[in-house]
Amino acid sequence: MENKTSKRRGTKPSPEKVSWAVINRLPRYHRYLGELLNQNILRISSSELSKLMAVTASQIRQDLNCFGGFGQQGYGYNVKYLYGKISELLGVEESYNAIIVGAGNLGKALVSSHMFERRGVTRLAMFDVNENVIGTTVSGIKVLSMDELEDFCNLHTVDIAVLTTPKECAAEVLDRLFACGVKGVWNFSNTELKTEDKDRTILNMHMGDFLMTLCYEIKKKEDKGV
Amino acid sequence: MENKTSKRRGTKPSPEKVSWAVINRLPRYHRYLGELLNQNILRISSSELSKLMAVTASQIRQDLNCFGGFGQQGYGYNVKYLYGKISELLGVEESYNAIIVGAGNLGKALVSSHMFERRGVTRLAMFDVNENVIGTTVSGIKVLSMDELEDFCNLHTVDIAVLTTPKECAAEVLDRLFACGVKGVWNFSNTELKTEDKDRTILNMHMGDFLMTLCYEIKKKEDKGV
Repeated sequence: MENKTSKRRGTKPSPEKVSWAVINRLPRYHRYLGELLNQNILRISSSELSKLMAVTASQIRQDLNCFGGFGQQGYGYNVKYLYGKISELLGVEESYNAIIVGAGNLGKALVSSHMFERRGVTRLAMFDVNENVIGTTVSGIKVLSMDELEDFCNLHTVDIAVLTTPKECAAEVLDRLFACGVKGVWNFSNTELKTEDKDRTILNMHMGDFLMTLCYEIKKKEDKGV
Repeated sequence: MENKTSKRRGTKPSPEKVSWAVINRLPRYHRYLGELLNQNILRISSSELSKLMAVTASQIRQDLNCFGGFGQQGYGYNVKYLYGKISELLGVEESYNAIIVGAGNLGKALVSSHMFERRGVTRLAMFDVNENVIGTTVSGIKVLSMDELEDFCNLHTVDIAVLTTPKECAAEVLDRLFACGVKGVWNFSNTELKTEDKDRTILNMHMGDFLMTLCYEIKKKEDKGV
C-alpha cells in the first residue's frame, strides 16, 4: 500500500535503515526514474513502474517505502522527488578518481565506457606490466607501468581501482592498492578477494554467476515447453 | 534454525517454489560449495558458511531451506548433497551453444573467459561488421561477418547470444537473433532490451549499476569515518 500522507517527506534516508538487498536495486530505480524525467514524466503509480521495470508492484512499494512516504494514494510516486532522494542516498553527487589496473581487452573495454563519466568518476590512468602497451593511450587514458603505481598514488588521490589482472596476481595487486590508500576495488580478476579492513570495499564480479543464471532461465523455459 | 530431521532429503527442488532472488544467489553458493568440495570439506555449519561467504547465517538458512531439510542440527550441511541439489536446480548438466556478437574489446575479453567451458557452454563463433576483424580468430574462436548470422544459425543450434554491439544497433540485432531461434541473450550493449516472448530470456547487464553500488559503499564508509 502506498502511504496516504506525505508527512515524512522531509525524512533523510538513512543508509543504516536500508538493507543491502534494497541498496543493490537502487541503481536500477535510479536509472529508470532518470529515464522518466528525461521523458518529462513527473508522476507514476507503482503498478505502472512495476510494468516498466518488470518487478512486482509489491516489491516496488516495499523498496521505496524504506525512505518514508513517497507514494500517495491516487497520485502515485513523485518521480523527481524520488529520483532526488535515491540520488542523495546513493551519493551520486560525490566525485571519485579511478585507475584501471590491467590494460588487456577487458581493461580497454571498461575504460572506454561512459559509465564513469556518468557517475562522476574520473579515470586517471591505466596500469599494466606489458611493455607493448605501456605508454599507449586507450580512450584518452594513458597506460603506465605497474612500477609507477605507488608514485602515481602518492601524487594523486585514487579512490577506486578497477582490477582486471589475471587472477594469479590479483591478491598481490590488491595489497599494493590498499597500501596506496585506494578505498574501493572493483574486482574483475575472476577470484574472490577479501579484506579484513572495514574501511575498504571490494566488489567481486563473477561473470560466470550471471551466465549460470541465464542458463537456468533458459532451462526453466525449455522444461515448461515440454 | 536448521531442520532436525532429514525426512525431506529426497525432495526434488522445484524452480516454482524458489524465488528469483534466491535463484540469483545460487550460483554463488554453487561456487563456494564447489570450492569446499575441492578442499575435501564434506560438512559445514551455517555459521561457518556464513563467515566464509560474508552473508548472515539466517540468510543462508532461509535460502537453503527452500530446497527442503538439508541442514541437521549439530551436523550442519552436507556439502556434497547440497552442491548436487543446487547443481540440479541450476541445471548445470545441460549443455548449450553460444555465439558472441561484437568482436570489440569486450567481446574479445568475454570470449576468452573460462566461464563458458566451466558451465558447459560451447562458444561456436563471433560475429562483427568490421572487415578488419572478420576472418580473424580470438581465443580459437573465428570471427564471422554479421551477414552470415542467419545461415550460421540455420546450420547450428545456437542457444545463447552474448551481445556486445554498440547500443544503437542492439534492438535490431536482438530481433535477428530471436528470429534465428536463439533462446537467451546476455546483453552488454548498455541498453535495456525487452521481449514480449515468454519463451525467450534477456539478461541485461548494466555495469554502471555496479559502479554506483561501489561508490555508495565507499561513501558510506567515508561518512562513518567522519
